[in-house]
Amino acid sequence: MIVTTHKNLTTNELKDVALAISEIDDRFNSLNFFGDNVFFLPINLSEELVRHITSIKGVDKIYFPPLNYQLSSKEWRSERTVFNVKDTLIGNGNFQIMAGPCAVESVEQMHQVGAHLQKLGINFIRGGAYKPRTSPYSFQGLETEGLKIIREIADEYGLKVITEVVDRSVLDDVSMYTDIIQIGARNMQNFFLLKELGRIDKPIFLKRGMSARIPEWLGAAEYILSSGNPKIILCERGIRTFDTSLRNTLDVAAIPLIKDLSHLPIFADPSHGTGDSKYIKPMALASIAAGCDGIMVEAHPNPAKALSDGPQSLNFDELTDLTKAIDNLNKALKA
Amino acid sequence: MIVTTHKNLTTNELKDVALAISEIDDRFNSLNFFGDNVFFLPINLSEELVRHITSIKGVDKIYFPPLNYQLSSKEWRSERTVFNVKDTLIGNGNFQIMAGPCAVESVEQMHQVGAHLQKLGINFIRGGAYKPRTSPYSFQGLETEGLKIIREIADEYGLKVITEVVDRSVLDDVSMYTDIIQIGARNMQNFFLLKELGRIDKPIFLKRGMSARIPEWLGAAEYILSSGNPKIILCERGIRTFDTSLRNTLDVAAIPLIKDLSHLPIFADPSHGTGDSKYIKPMALASIAAGCDGIMVEAHPNPAKALSDGPQSLNFDELTDLTKAIDNLNKALKA
Amino acid sequence: MIVTTHKNLTTNELKDVALAISEIDDRFNSLNFFGDNVFFLPINLSEELVRHITSIKGVDKIYFPPLNYQLSSKEWRSERTVFNVKDTLIGNGNFQIMAGPCAVESVEQMHQVGAHLQKLGINFIRGGAYKPRTSPYSFQGLETEGLKIIREIADEYGLKVITEVVDRSVLDDVSMYTDIIQIGARNMQNFFLLKELGRIDKPIFLKRGMSARIPEWLGAAEYILSSGNPKIILCERGIRTFDTSLRNTLDVAAIPLIKDLSHLPIFADPSHGTGDSKYIKPMALASIAAGCDGIMVEAHPNPAKALSDGPQSLNFDELTDLTKAIDNLNKALKA
Amino acid sequence: MIVTTHKNLTTNELKDVALAISEIDDRFNSLNFFGDNVFFLPINLSEELVRHITSIKGVDKIYFPPLNYQLSSKEWRSERTVFNVKDTLIGNGNFQIMAGPCAVESVEQMHQVGAHLQKLGINFIRGGAYKPRTSPYSFQGLETEGLKIIREIADEYGLKVITEVVDRSVLDDVSMYTDIIQIGARNMQNFFLLKELGRIDKPIFLKRGMSARIPEWLGAAEYILSSGNPKIILCERGIRTFDTSLRNTLDVAAIPLIKDLSHLPIFADPSHGTGDSKYIKPMALASIAAGCDGIMVEAHPNPAKALSDGPQSLNFDELTDLTKAIDNLNKALKA
Repeated sequence: MIVTTHKNLTTNELKDVALAISEIDDRFNSLNFFGDNVFFLPINLSEELVRHITSIKGVDKIYFPPLNYQLSSKEWRSERTVFNVKDTLIGNGNFQIMAGPCAVESVEQMHQVGAHLQKLGINFIRGGAYKPRTSPYSFQGLETEGLKIIREIADEYGLKVITEVVDRSVLDDVSMYTDIIQIGARNMQNFFLLKELGRIDKPIFLKRGMSARIPEWLGAAEYILSSGNPKIILCERGIRTFDTSLRNTLDVAAIPLIKDLSHLPIFADPSHGTGDSKYIKPMALASIAAGCDGIMVEAHPNPAKALSDGPQSLNFDELTDLTKAIDNLNKALKA
Repeated sequence: MIVTTHKNLTTNELKDVALAISEIDDRFNSLNFFGDNVFFLPINLSEELVRHITSIKGVDKIYFPPLNYQLSSKEWRSERTVFNVKDTLIGNGNFQIMAGPCAVESVEQMHQVGAHLQKLGINFIRGGAYKPRTSPYSFQGLETEGLKIIREIADEYGLKVITEVVDRSVLDDVSMYTDIIQIGARNMQNFFLLKELGRIDKPIFLKRGMSARIPEWLGAAEYILSSGNPKIILCERGIRTFDTSLRNTLDVAAIPLIKDLSHLPIFADPSHGTGDSKYIKPMALASIAAGCDGIMVEAHPNPAKALSDGPQSLNFDELTDLTKAIDNLNKALKA
Repeated sequence: MIVTTHKNLTTNELKDVALAISEIDDRFNSLNFFGDNVFFLPINLSEELVRHITSIKGVDKIYFPPLNYQLSSKEWRSERTVFNVKDTLIGNGNFQIMAGPCAVESVEQMHQVGAHLQKLGINFIRGGAYKPRTSPYSFQGLETEGLKIIREIADEYGLKVITEVVDRSVLDDVSMYTDIIQIGARNMQNFFLLKELGRIDKPIFLKRGMSARIPEWLGAAEYILSSGNPKIILCERGIRTFDTSLRNTLDVAAIPLIKDLSHLPIFADPSHGTGDSKYIKPMALASIAAGCDGIMVEAHPNPAKALSDGPQSLNFDELTDLTKAIDNLNKALKA
Repeated sequence: MIVTTHKNLTTNELKDVALAISEIDDRFNSLNFFGDNVFFLPINLSEELVRHITSIKGVDKIYFPPLNYQLSSKEWRSERTVFNVKDTLIGNGNFQIMAGPCAVESVEQMHQVGAHLQKLGINFIRGGAYKPRTSPYSFQGLETEGLKIIREIADEYGLKVITEVVDRSVLDDVSMYTDIIQIGARNMQNFFLLKELGRIDKPIFLKRGMSARIPEWLGAAEYILSSGNPKIILCERGIRTFDTSLRNTLDVAAIPLIKDLSHLPIFADPSHGTGDSKYIKPMALASIAAGCDGIMVEAHPNPAKALSDGPQSLNFDELTDLTKAIDNLNKALKA
């Protein structure tokens, strides 16, 4: 249950509201979000308690979202979340492409990527410095060195950085260099890490776990929101099913579903969603037609020589072609 | 392995080719398809045998498709299959919508549907007369009476009929009334039925089984093709996964995959693919952006009162809106 | 809803009950099952109607099973179903093994199998005459010839026959030769075929579809039961999941679940359930420990040369070893 | 590729081997495991290189396990791993039960549990102090307070402790109190955490991720092994499938599969595997019949009042009954 107060309450008035709510259930929490003072309680209220809370001085509205994802729900916030990453808007149809290699491999590689993204008018460069790999014997990333490279390249070409955090111990390090913090599918339910993201003043790009149901995904977002960070981007990246034709099954329907249940921006990642560069373009277009707010896509100067995920990376010509097709489609959908 | 002969061979020359091939493996089969004389063998050939066959008088080309789906493969037929249903083209981007209720319920219901489809310029009316239902206690369809109704309505409003065959015993009956024969997901591997479809001179609309892998689906198409019927439309209708938010997970990526592996037309069914009318429009548009040749969608004059599948049926206003959005998208994609 | 009448009602009294029930809902159906007169209705009743029915002369009891699987439910029949196949009991812990090759290949092959089963004291011989195969180019079975062979061998070695029906058109043919009719996973929801099985006076061995949920499986059994045949054996044979280590995932928990929801006998098929002869023994023992009433297992004189399913077939030594382990385990579980 | 050296090499001889191997590929690593000096390389070797390595002075044997799970493979270590936890053997048929509540809730609760386990002769007490929960609003555990309670109770009743680590930041804290460190399904691919477990001198209980394929699970074990900790117990705890009858699908076949591919002990968790206390007993027995080395099961003095996972917890009578059934079965299987 969520309670918001009128704006412009004094500190004392706010304390009084908090006190009154704490008498109902002392597990309440409070945040100042988008200018609203927000109190939330992990319970359903009786009609009598609803009347009681409504009568507290300073209380504005009461909301009844699903118990496990309150702050991420449409019931609480019906307008779609939009925020700036530096000077670039994300959310509510401000369509963005995030592109770059799976892993940062070298300065030279990233120079080529940065220059090409700039040429295409893409705003966000991606690239992993810490790579979660199924085998301990696979390339694990350049770590801090990789972070420095992607930051430097981004600054040179006027781009914003998105890169992944794989453990709480490197969160502060990564935060120094990135503009958006990515949480990978394997960490979607790393709850300690999620709680820490609440204290970070950077947007979080939260990928769906490979077997996460929609309410579990929103529950993960809720960990971040309820810890204090309202800037979250959800990203559908393919689920694991019986089908073995492709690496994953991109659950395109998750896009309109999320838009129906939540106010958070929703992206799609057709690289991980298919695992095969041949199918990135049709699945990117499908995701856009289904209503996503942006696309994350892997691109590499020479996919055949990539240290990871080469088969699902576009080369530069393919990325150029995709960008044109996306522009064309977005225009048609807005017409 | 597939062997084609030169056109215009005499009957005797053809017999000689058949004889020569039968000496290699007597399980060979032959068909006259799209004007080509086609021999196919369920084996891989040694280089020596390839040379031998090439040298047979009258032989034109040898193809090496996947062993289990030869005639449905791109290796054999690189141009996309297109055919007429009466005067309407299907396949290779001749986009078609097939709409109508899950089940034929009454003359009055179908009159309303027929009139609305005609108004929207939709060419195909759907409606089940035999309904496969999970429970024996659910409505099982109007059977022959339903077939007569849908045929009559289609003729009145200038539409073509598509309806489902659920058993070989009603195949001849259904064939009398329909223009396209639908095979439902539960029957995708009803191999006796599939073989019978080879002797029918009507297009077959083959839905994907709910846990069928792509090669299994093409193997099912192969039963029909190798029995003599080349007019097949594949339809992705959602697969069964761990996700419980929606009735099924529409595997949109199956669309570009099928276009990559096969020459057969590929449709999508966002009604069964989602089970929820709210998500039909975004998933129809997604499927089109991914490259499908058409859409099957459930529509009903009053979904709340439908005898089956009401929650996944559009009302007429929603169908009108969907049709406009599809037209707009198709124009943009062709631009 | 199920209504049973007192035994020894006259024909006229029974007609009166039927008439009274038909006035509530004319979709009612009636059967004489295990000596009970049984009326069932595809609806939930109001309290008022329950009182009304209870007051009808001749009515004994009213049951409220799940709507979609009434006759297969424990709510209706709390004692477990047991029946004879010739002189051999099936169900309620009368443990049976059904063994034999995937496909009947030759008289010689079946002689070897029959002799070995007799030696081991196994009562049932299996072997397919009609084989549902993913590809039309794979071996499709010996058909009627195969049926004659398995019948002849069974009679020679004092065994009972179980073999599969793949289409309604061969049902009468198969029925002439077999003692138990098997319905394969792909046909679990072939509803026309299921209804026909109601008129057959042979037990039906109903395999679970590879993506069937438990209520759907019981719904399939309900088609047979409500058409008049109470002798059904359910068989868990592995479901399709994301896991690719084995051909299927044997859902062992389905065994206690079925025993909790239904009175029907439940078998397991560790051959299809694993696809690998190495894992048949542990999975057979696991299924028995979980409470199954019997095991179906593939066995072949020379698995390496089997025309189908060789990799999941035991050789004779392995079958002997399995039988001993099963005996040992069954003794311990009864202790 | 794994290279072992003769025992009793001098430090200098070992350095020479390392130097020679580093010249082939400098990504090699080395460990002293179970008294063997072990070098491993993340590559496949040419025949020439194999000959070269064999000729290095001090080299004993070369092994060719799967590249991604070398040290966990049967190819490297054919005898099954056994180790002591204090004075209790785990692995290779030294059957162990680990029981206790999902979460440590209070001293009183744990006293009851400890006393009952002692009475039943169970050696290991489980109980979570840090609980990974889908919703941030669910009970998150007593944290350090919970660790102290479970340690104190274990010591009082002569039990060993197993409890979960959910983040690297609490690893040292948990290690102080526990005898075995549990890694939950959601953390199976938390690679940073896995690497840290290499430096801990405690056995690791590694649960399978809910959509992990077998090689991915062994890859996770490989992170721990290759970081220096050879004491790992794998635990099958149910996978996520389309089936919704139960919380998870216990993949019993994973037990014989793991025993075939790896030397590591394998347990089963029928509580999480079913989510329903009714099915714990049959699934525990099934897992044992399939060959597992032990069982983890949730038990609570009053499941209806448990703060988490009550529905899948046994009460004390049920635990007593289960223990007897397990003893009986284990005796029969060893006979």
